Amino acid sequence: MYLIGGNMSIYKKTDNISYAIGAFVTFELINYKKEYVKEILISKSTKLELKNKIINLCKKNDIKYSYNDKTINKITSKKNVYIIGIFYKYNQNLSKENHIILDNPSNFGNLGTIFRSCIAFDFNNVALIGNSADYFNPQVIRASMGAIFHLNISQFKDINEYKKNYKNKLFSFMLNTDTKLNSIIKFKTPFSLIFGNEATGLDDQYKYISTPIKIESSSRVDSLNITSAVSIALYESYIKNKKEAVEKK
Amino acid sequence: MYLIGGNMSIYKKTDNISYAIGAFVTFELINYKKEYVKEILISKSTKLELKNKIINLCKKNDIKYSYNDKTINKITSKKNVYIIGIFYKYNQNLSKENHIILDNPSNFGNLGTIFRSCIAFDFNNVALIGNSADYFNPQVIRASMGAIFHLNISQFKDINEYKKNYKNKLFSFMLNTDTKLNSIIKFKTPFSLIFGNEATGLDDQYKYISTPIKIESSSRVDSLNITSAVSIALYESYIKNKKEAVEKK
Repeated sequence: MYLIGGNMSIYKKTDNISYAIGAFVTFELINYKKEYVKEILISKSTKLELKNKIINLCKKNDIKYSYNDKTINKITSKKNVYIIGIFYKYNQNLSKENHIILDNPSNFGNLGTIFRSCIAFDFNNVALIGNSADYFNPQVIRASMGAIFHLNISQFKDINEYKKNYKNKLFSFMLNTDTKLNSIIKFKTPFSLIFGNEATGLDDQYKYISTPIKIESSSRVDSLNITSAVSIALYESYIKNKKEAVEKK
Repeated sequence: MYLIGGNMSIYKKTDNISYAIGAFVTFELINYKKEYVKEILISKSTKLELKNKIINLCKKNDIKYSYNDKTINKITSKKNVYIIGIFYKYNQNLSKENHIILDNPSNFGNLGTIFRSCIAFDFNNVALIGNSADYFNPQVIRASMGAIFHLNISQFKDINEYKKNYKNKLFSFMLNTDTKLNSIIKFKTPFSLIFGNEATGLDDQYKYISTPIKIESSSRVDSLNITSAVSIALYESYIKNKKEAVEKK
């Protein structure tokens, strides 16, 4: 049990189901992961236009729905939640593209925000290493604005298990290196960008198995917030690869 | 009253004091805004090395300190908080440099994270427009990792009041424009980067009083999280201005 919107929710990490809370994320769930939808809950006070939209989408996709304010209020204490999608948790393999690797991410909001930035910059795959926060927690889903349903997400015991399965060129974001993100002219696909835990960063083993790089900044802060660092790195590689694509034309 | 670390705190927006919670942010407070420090609270269970460090710093700066676990536990429910800095809220004017302008920012964590990115990329001034979240809330201070104490922060009723006082060239981050951040070769000092509220963005008036620009991204998400957008924009302008400085040499 933990907080959603300030009060206790019925969600548990060990459940085999989770919740897309709110209309926007529920539409993303149905549009991108409909095969895992268990059912849709609709509040009786949903406005007609939205009600018709969700019911039509459910019918079109043969998805069960019901009016159930009682269960909605059990799942979230947030006001103005009219639609909740209940779905079965699923497992995914990463595709042979570029990846983001997060080592021991610990914060629900950060994880969701990072997922949102991934989709913004065309990264479709996230590897979670070690003891990651529960990425199906409804707080993550909400912070991701539904981007989680666009992604392949896979968990690995450690970085070696990941390396056995994927041969991407690895770049680790560290503070203690002279190589600047900005100095890398191109990221050759497939590559992976690796980021450490919010408090502890990446341990030394990453120095030896990857190219350490840093985000150039003033010396006045120790480090950036992880969501800021990831977003900057994704943006930079997205723009650089785009430039290259234009030049190739 | 609101949540710090899950429980009620004694902090109130209308108080004339606020709290730097934790050793790291308290050191930032003393080092950058010592003239506003009221007193320092130290837990009896603080480790000797840290205890000596904070007491020496207090003595050096003629700051009052006391052992007071009872008050520490009233201020935060977080475990492992050994040091709290109590300070008087202060007003500041912005300096005639580059600014960040936030229109109606509503989230404590976002505000703190943005402050941290400002310092990372050498922006020393933040203008808050309209009905901003209370930037002296201890959650903001904590999320900023103390970066708030490096900044000049000033509030304005509306953007026109800001414009009367500062003649910076204005750039607004909007979705609905063709001008890309990446296409701007240089940001001529003094300039200001403007960002809208998390949910509502910037209203149309900004189109007419500034240059609208956007962060290039895939069409698969509506928008970025505000902390991601601000961090990318600050990084880009920081790197571009740095490059220019190198070229000038």
